[in-house]
Amino acid sequence: MDPITSRPPGRPRSQRAEDAILRAALALLAERKNVAEVSIEAIAARAEVGKATIYRRWPGKEELFADAVATLRPPLPELGQAPLRDDLIAIFTQVCAEMDSPLDRAVTVLMMDQTHPEIVHRIKQQVLAPRSRAVANLLRRGVDNGEITPDVDPEAVVNLLTGGAFFCRRPAGGRSAQERAQLLVDTVWNGIRA
Amino acid sequence: MDPITSRPPGRPRSQRAEDAILRAALALLAERKNVAEVSIEAIAARAEVGKATIYRRWPGKEELFADAVATLRPPLPELGQAPLRDDLIAIFTQVCAEMDSPLDRAVTVLMMDQTHPEIVHRIKQQVLAPRSRAVANLLRRGVDNGEITPDVDPEAVVNLLTGGAFFCRRPAGGRSAQERAQLLVDTVWNGIRA
Repeated sequence: MDPITSRPPGRPRSQRAEDAILRAALALLAERKNVAEVSIEAIAARAEVGKATIYRRWPGKEELFADAVATLRPPLPELGQAPLRDDLIAIFTQVCAEMDSPLDRAVTVLMMDQTHPEIVHRIKQQVLAPRSRAVANLLRRGVDNGEITPDVDPEAVVNLLTGGAFFCRRPAGGRSAQERAQLLVDTVWNGIRA
Repeated sequence: MDPITSRPPGRPRSQRAEDAILRAALALLAERKNVAEVSIEAIAARAEVGKATIYRRWPGKEELFADAVATLRPPLPELGQAPLRDDLIAIFTQVCAEMDSPLDRAVTVLMMDQTHPEIVHRIKQQVLAPRSRAVANLLRRGVDNGEITPDVDPEAVVNLLTGGAFFCRRPAGGRSAQERAQLLVDTVWNGIRA
């Protein structure tokens, strides 16, 4: 190995601490199922860092939880290169796989919260809405280039496919994320009318 | 008023106690967001009944919570009389309206629980699966009578429409339950392919 380009293995130490904090926040949310019961103290203890390490990076739970959800909802696959049906299958394969993660119930815990509207709002604005908009824009381009019918409501399609992925996660039948995504997309793509 | 047919107003006392207990269980689940934190004691206190009143009617939380969810998921409208699209809109209008109830998050709390699989299993078997099966059977009859295409997967349609209803509940735009149901059903009914 060239000694000049060699590096210590793994990620830099500060990045590893950040990862541990975000994972700890998600794990505690998934376990305790209640935003109010997941304190900065509890996250610090689980991540084995001091509270000061957390506060150096995040002003509070609102910003920390939004960044934590962002790790479960990474950027979507590159959009607009493939035929639209293929793009939709690629996107919802990722969505189905994300929803299979045991930590993913942390997202549901956060979005169901009624006592911290600022957290719900930030997650929607910072993480979820940009992804929904990207898919809706892809559908609008599909209308423009004649791949889909112009009377389609893009938000309804996003809700159907995201909700369909949510309701068929980790199924007893054991279908892969890609098989589930293809089934959902093709059902909406083709319609059910004879 | 004919004195022979006159009755005290409202429901019989035992029925009123039962209603209060089921409502208390749902309210506590929706508030505390954790099955483990909703004890029979807490339900009795909230419903203003003795614990014995609860245990006379239900052996434990498993049976009580299943009956509570059943009050939020009442029987679907009569199926199979109208054209299939009208039936689907009627069914998912009810589903959208159910999901708008503030108590409905109790269902999500219960279905996300990982530490009480027997409760999750009972609710699925006793309340949710029969409704899903009824809609899937309706779709199969639609295949038989030529209203929908034979290559449709009924369970995928149920997941799409139920999930779509879940993801568009209480929307900022303020669409009624019926408007949302019609939009979701028609999107799946017609498909999106040009």
